[in-house]
Amino acid sequence: MAPAATTEEFPVSLDSHTLSSKQATVTASVLHGPLDLRLETRSLEQPSIGELQIQIKSTGICGSDVSYYKKFANGDLCACAPLSLGHESAGVVVGIGPQVNGFAIGDKVALEVGIPCGQCGICRKGRYNLCKKMKFRSSAKSVPHFQGTLQERINHPAIWCHKIPEHVSFDAAALLEPLSVAIHSVNRAAPTPGSTALVIGAGTVGLLVAAMARQSGCTFVTIMDIDAGRVNYAISNGFATHGYVVPKPLHSSASSSSIYISGTSTPASSDGVMTPLSSYSSISDRLDGAKAVAADVLAVARPDMLTLNEDEDDGVDVTFECTGKEACMQTSLYATKPGGKVIMVGMGTPIQTVPLSAAHLREVDILGIFRYANTYQTGIRLLAGKGPMKLPSLDNMVTHKFKGLGAAKKAFELAGRTVDDEGNLVLKVVIEA
Amino acid sequence: MAPAATTEEFPVSLDSHTLSSKQATVTASVLHGPLDLRLETRSLEQPSIGELQIQIKSTGICGSDVSYYKKFANGDLCACAPLSLGHESAGVVVGIGPQVNGFAIGDKVALEVGIPCGQCGICRKGRYNLCKKMKFRSSAKSVPHFQGTLQERINHPAIWCHKIPEHVSFDAAALLEPLSVAIHSVNRAAPTPGSTALVIGAGTVGLLVAAMARQSGCTFVTIMDIDAGRVNYAISNGFATHGYVVPKPLHSSASSSSIYISGTSTPASSDGVMTPLSSYSSISDRLDGAKAVAADVLAVARPDMLTLNEDEDDGVDVTFECTGKEACMQTSLYATKPGGKVIMVGMGTPIQTVPLSAAHLREVDILGIFRYANTYQTGIRLLAGKGPMKLPSLDNMVTHKFKGLGAAKKAFELAGRTVDDEGNLVLKVVIEA
Amino acid sequence: MAPAATTEEFPVSLDSHTLSSKQATVTASVLHGPLDLRLETRSLEQPSIGELQIQIKSTGICGSDVSYYKKFANGDLCACAPLSLGHESAGVVVGIGPQVNGFAIGDKVALEVGIPCGQCGICRKGRYNLCKKMKFRSSAKSVPHFQGTLQERINHPAIWCHKIPEHVSFDAAALLEPLSVAIHSVNRAAPTPGSTALVIGAGTVGLLVAAMARQSGCTFVTIMDIDAGRVNYAISNGFATHGYVVPKPLHSSASSSSIYISGTSTPASSDGVMTPLSSYSSISDRLDGAKAVAADVLAVARPDMLTLNEDEDDGVDVTFECTGKEACMQTSLYATKPGGKVIMVGMGTPIQTVPLSAAHLREVDILGIFRYANTYQTGIRLLAGKGPMKLPSLDNMVTHKFKGLGAAKKAFELAGRTVDDEGNLVLKVVIEA
Amino acid sequence: MAPAATTEEFPVSLDSHTLSSKQATVTASVLHGPLDLRLETRSLEQPSIGELQIQIKSTGICGSDVSYYKKFANGDLCACAPLSLGHESAGVVVGIGPQVNGFAIGDKVALEVGIPCGQCGICRKGRYNLCKKMKFRSSAKSVPHFQGTLQERINHPAIWCHKIPEHVSFDAAALLEPLSVAIHSVNRAAPTPGSTALVIGAGTVGLLVAAMARQSGCTFVTIMDIDAGRVNYAISNGFATHGYVVPKPLHSSASSSSIYISGTSTPASSDGVMTPLSSYSSISDRLDGAKAVAADVLAVARPDMLTLNEDEDDGVDVTFECTGKEACMQTSLYATKPGGKVIMVGMGTPIQTVPLSAAHLREVDILGIFRYANTYQTGIRLLAGKGPMKLPSLDNMVTHKFKGLGAAKKAFELAGRTVDDEGNLVLKVVIEA
Repeated sequence: MAPAATTEEFPVSLDSHTLSSKQATVTASVLHGPLDLRLETRSLEQPSIGELQIQIKSTGICGSDVSYYKKFANGDLCACAPLSLGHESAGVVVGIGPQVNGFAIGDKVALEVGIPCGQCGICRKGRYNLCKKMKFRSSAKSVPHFQGTLQERINHPAIWCHKIPEHVSFDAAALLEPLSVAIHSVNRAAPTPGSTALVIGAGTVGLLVAAMARQSGCTFVTIMDIDAGRVNYAISNGFATHGYVVPKPLHSSASSSSIYISGTSTPASSDGVMTPLSSYSSISDRLDGAKAVAADVLAVARPDMLTLNEDEDDGVDVTFECTGKEACMQTSLYATKPGGKVIMVGMGTPIQTVPLSAAHLREVDILGIFRYANTYQTGIRLLAGKGPMKLPSLDNMVTHKFKGLGAAKKAFELAGRTVDDEGNLVLKVVIEA
Repeated sequence: MAPAATTEEFPVSLDSHTLSSKQATVTASVLHGPLDLRLETRSLEQPSIGELQIQIKSTGICGSDVSYYKKFANGDLCACAPLSLGHESAGVVVGIGPQVNGFAIGDKVALEVGIPCGQCGICRKGRYNLCKKMKFRSSAKSVPHFQGTLQERINHPAIWCHKIPEHVSFDAAALLEPLSVAIHSVNRAAPTPGSTALVIGAGTVGLLVAAMARQSGCTFVTIMDIDAGRVNYAISNGFATHGYVVPKPLHSSASSSSIYISGTSTPASSDGVMTPLSSYSSISDRLDGAKAVAADVLAVARPDMLTLNEDEDDGVDVTFECTGKEACMQTSLYATKPGGKVIMVGMGTPIQTVPLSAAHLREVDILGIFRYANTYQTGIRLLAGKGPMKLPSLDNMVTHKFKGLGAAKKAFELAGRTVDDEGNLVLKVVIEA
Repeated sequence: MAPAATTEEFPVSLDSHTLSSKQATVTASVLHGPLDLRLETRSLEQPSIGELQIQIKSTGICGSDVSYYKKFANGDLCACAPLSLGHESAGVVVGIGPQVNGFAIGDKVALEVGIPCGQCGICRKGRYNLCKKMKFRSSAKSVPHFQGTLQERINHPAIWCHKIPEHVSFDAAALLEPLSVAIHSVNRAAPTPGSTALVIGAGTVGLLVAAMARQSGCTFVTIMDIDAGRVNYAISNGFATHGYVVPKPLHSSASSSSIYISGTSTPASSDGVMTPLSSYSSISDRLDGAKAVAADVLAVARPDMLTLNEDEDDGVDVTFECTGKEACMQTSLYATKPGGKVIMVGMGTPIQTVPLSAAHLREVDILGIFRYANTYQTGIRLLAGKGPMKLPSLDNMVTHKFKGLGAAKKAFELAGRTVDDEGNLVLKVVIEA
Repeated sequence: MAPAATTEEFPVSLDSHTLSSKQATVTASVLHGPLDLRLETRSLEQPSIGELQIQIKSTGICGSDVSYYKKFANGDLCACAPLSLGHESAGVVVGIGPQVNGFAIGDKVALEVGIPCGQCGICRKGRYNLCKKMKFRSSAKSVPHFQGTLQERINHPAIWCHKIPEHVSFDAAALLEPLSVAIHSVNRAAPTPGSTALVIGAGTVGLLVAAMARQSGCTFVTIMDIDAGRVNYAISNGFATHGYVVPKPLHSSASSSSIYISGTSTPASSDGVMTPLSSYSSISDRLDGAKAVAADVLAVARPDMLTLNEDEDDGVDVTFECTGKEACMQTSLYATKPGGKVIMVGMGTPIQTVPLSAAHLREVDILGIFRYANTYQTGIRLLAGKGPMKLPSLDNMVTHKFKGLGAAKKAFELAGRTVDDEGNLVLKVVIEA
């Protein structure tokens, strides 16, 4: 059962704009420093050659947005100027620049918000997500910062706007962005049919990765998280076939004490309540803990796998590590079978102490993913899938909706939590126009 | 809705054997020439080192069996000595030879009936299906012929016996053999998630290939056949998402006149009713026909694919050609998009006239498959899959069951048809012990 | 020993242009119909946004150029308007359009003359050679035709101009185009080290493919052609390790009678002297011939391969078919080992009758190549290689040089032959500015 | 220039055995504890079914042998019973067991000394090096230990004996074992032609990996080591195109202070002279050091690479890490370009602290290799290669030869050093019969 989405409307006094692209000013939600979120008016040019003007209808809040909101920084990246957040977005075409073909006013589109140079060697080879000149909306990496989608309207290159069909909602279309991360992850993993998978972390990205693993041939997909609500959600909604809740860190429970998991998109570590033991124990103890968790999680699916030979005991074919935590990376290496793959999905601790020999000597490939490339058309096709094998509903993952850019502050506050005030699961929070 | 399986029992007076492996004689169904099928008594040794003795419980009839039954030959391979047919089989362990570990009397097993040398270069590289020294039961290739499974009991190397769980039926276990062909086909195709597929031919193999294409990430799977019953079966039972029935050859209908399709396993060409126009028309006309059919079949899934850009018009990502017919191979090349793949699954006309430039200049890879390698454990795992995404029922594909080796003749006669006397669809015919 | 390049100068009275990009007119060699080659004056705009103006210094003549010259058509493509030929080219930057970075007047560049759209799905995936909107200079495919490089100067997108180092000659830089075909071919073949290869056809492309096969790990590379001069050239200059000259068609020699080979770039079939028996014999006879040639050519390298086990007898790991002839395609399928690959390089007969089962049942992959993608930087790096393993000299392959666009007619006449009037080998003919 | 091999003969009083397989006793070199190497007499059975009896003619000393010799252990593996060392071996067939085909008395063979089960899932898939039941000669992993080749004669399965041609020396044949590691490494790396490679560590394995990188398409191969002699050897003998000597650790030189490199096969760390700064400095300092070394080593090949665009500055396509040291693994991750690969070749520190985000966010794949599979036939073919592109001489790598098993102690002592008493380079030490 999916939690019901709660919509809170905020009476932001936006001027009633017509669907005209000639309008010179738009309202934007702009972050000026930690927790310093303001509603401002910006001027907007007509769309240039090759651009569309898009009225933003829905933007999902990502963990990186929450990080900027709280710290004006995301990992090593510090914002150095006012920044509009938001990069999971969909909207409507309200203006068409010169030399654009194939679009009409009123078309619904999902935005691919990373713009590569399109000309360097790696772009031409199709791995444009690795382009050094990539500009990505709402990220502080490029200077001046490329502004995010929490604005009334933006101009965006038409070739990075993907038309979506009428009956797909703007929220689902916005979630094509995290779905793209999941698609890219399974494209890198390239599982053969009948494979087994482990997904560590059941936030938005972990859930979507689990769903994509099933879509691409993994017969058994076990998802694990420290949050039982998320694991239950994953199982009840068909994202994974098996679930494992990591016991909370206890001094007496060596087997799981060092494991601390949260989904990528909404890091739950902010409250400081559940301090992992990682910092207290020796590396050897921590690795023993990771080994024990690996053994425990592998045991979950085994009874259903009709495992009649011992090979199956060696681990899963693919582990998708979606938390970015060191302890989870350690667990990943132990939980994967010889010749298997660990996909690093969740961004997290940049420098990690890991049992590399467990990968080296068992030829477990360690493959990272950075965002995505060539995934939107795939995602749109998956949304169109029919029958029993179709992707779980993306709309269902939207647990909380806020109306209007003025509600952004509330949205960010909520997106940083795993449950709301009523104790309901928080998965994806979106801000609708 | 699956057609109900009809079981006909034949009162064959087999001696009532005990489950003892010490018994020296077994009953065998042996083909001595075209249509000359006899029930004979053979002596059976105790299982040697590394062997199990298996009591055969179920054997599915394959198109090649029907061919041997009718012509004492299969393609170029002519039998030169009495030959027991049958290679889709499952049974029970009734004897255990020396140096065999991991098996107990009473274990249910599926038989992998091709025995490679295990020592040559290609075996060591894991592509053992291509081993030149391969012995395959019921095939006339190796001399003396390696006898098929239509025998009461056989001795078989333990490492080629795959344990199956209690709740999997012997019939389903027997169908792991054609399922293996399908698994190998998608392993070769390696579709990325969100791919589109076309399957030509809706016999047992075509159906299973379609199901495996869906399992391994193809979101849209269109199956085509000249037999509407089979296409309907495929759609109603979740093997494919879309179906296309090739119009019967008509002089006035150029678009489909040259296409003649039947599934690999039960070639329907025997009755001579539906003579294709292939023989009458020029190569240029025939290619025009193939092009037209390709265009027609591509149109079937398009409305559901939310196709919003023109790229989709170029064809499917993968075509699985399961008939072995020249006209279907021609259609395959036209129906596949640039950069896509055509998988040659169905064995058929050895020498074909095809528009190679349509593959060459559009970089459509042409990949053949010969039987399978490393597929049984995958198949067993797929049988254990749960939830909405599980494989369609293999038991349901068994439309006709015969009891006892004495019924073999009737079984072969029926397996060569596409409908039985009552007009019911004939898909898979099995002979049970 | 490489044949000495013979340079013939033609005193064409071109106006003495300065290296200024402001100049409004240029001289161009323009084909108006079969054999109707004219020297004309065209106006040339200033380079637009993103463009460079290039003074062409060297253009190599390709087989397709010769075909247009003789028939005003190439295969199915018929020119419908005046067409400048030439697409193997290098030159000097003489003008720089707006928004171009990284280039300076005087830079030496090789031209990649196919311009894909850069925006469609297949372009973004890095396989831009398959872009449906590709415009390719000197080809009649797009209308209006995209004019070739046999012009004094042209404007070309900067991102498709590749800087080459000072010490690389313009001729070698021009040959980066056919080298690109070879690079793309081995990229598709992806041979593992220690592989064996067969290259059919020893024209420019066949020679370069052979050299690239060696560069990419093929330890034994056998090249075959009907022309002994070319085979000798290949061996003496380190392009291949072994050579095989196909005996000329003789009525009495079944083994090779149906094989007719010429390199892609200079089809030698025009003189009609060496009519292959293909047209006379049955398909069965022709296949027997192909099988015999395959057996003969495989025998060439065997003594040197230290072949101590029978596996080696099954064929080569990769065959590169560079002639486009049906008989050679048949030979390719027979000459390749189970699990190997046949790369279709040479464009030729669009519809072929081939023993598909030899590929199907032995899992020999048939992969076509269409031009190239992402090869120029690789080619430039290979030109910079040092030491004993470096690529054979491209300059050495230029057997005949003509000076000035006025010499184009003579150049085309010669490029259509395999030996010149003095009996010297004709490999690559270039027209220098 | 290759260092001259120095042969020291030791007058060991072995009984003069005839080439008879009926002899019941053989002499063996057996390690009983650290430095406790004894010459013993063992009884030897007749070869069993499928076995050959091999008279060992040459055994190369590997770093793991030296480790056992010094510590009676290798990494985590402790010997628990007397153990004959040696696994790089070649010899002559002196006895043939039942059911062996294709061998004759007197055949020269190289021994593949790891015997997988041949029956489990991973064996059947061709990755038999990962078989859990693998028995490997001279390793303490399986109990009872599988005895190494420093014995007069051994019985070995015929299918793991590879015939070598007459003119290949026993020493070169013995080196097929480390060459196999190198072949497996490049098979995993699968470089495209024109690639750039970095090899860290210039011991036997590093040298062979460098040579194989060149063989398989890497145009530029830079090798680095702390030992200038080895780097010079690599360049002068054509193993690599460029070399870099890591400056010795100095407190004042941050850029390289934390890097400590030695080839896998002869760890030079035993003398304690060159203590790396790793233990003293913070992780952040050490990573800065690794980054600086990466920048320095990348600069070496750049001038020769005709690098005309900035992409080349991002790193090499493939780094082969052959030392197993943490600092070198850190350097590897920084030195590899986005989308590239790091191959973990050298076994070393099991738990490492590494900048995983440098791999994750730049999609640098981390692939380990464990020994090798399906490499011997490739190696034999490479030994047969001809012309300028052939593999550098393996015989030349043998810098020191000892005669007779009695010289084993001296051989182990020397193999643990990088220079001998005369100051000559120590690369590969072999013990000949």
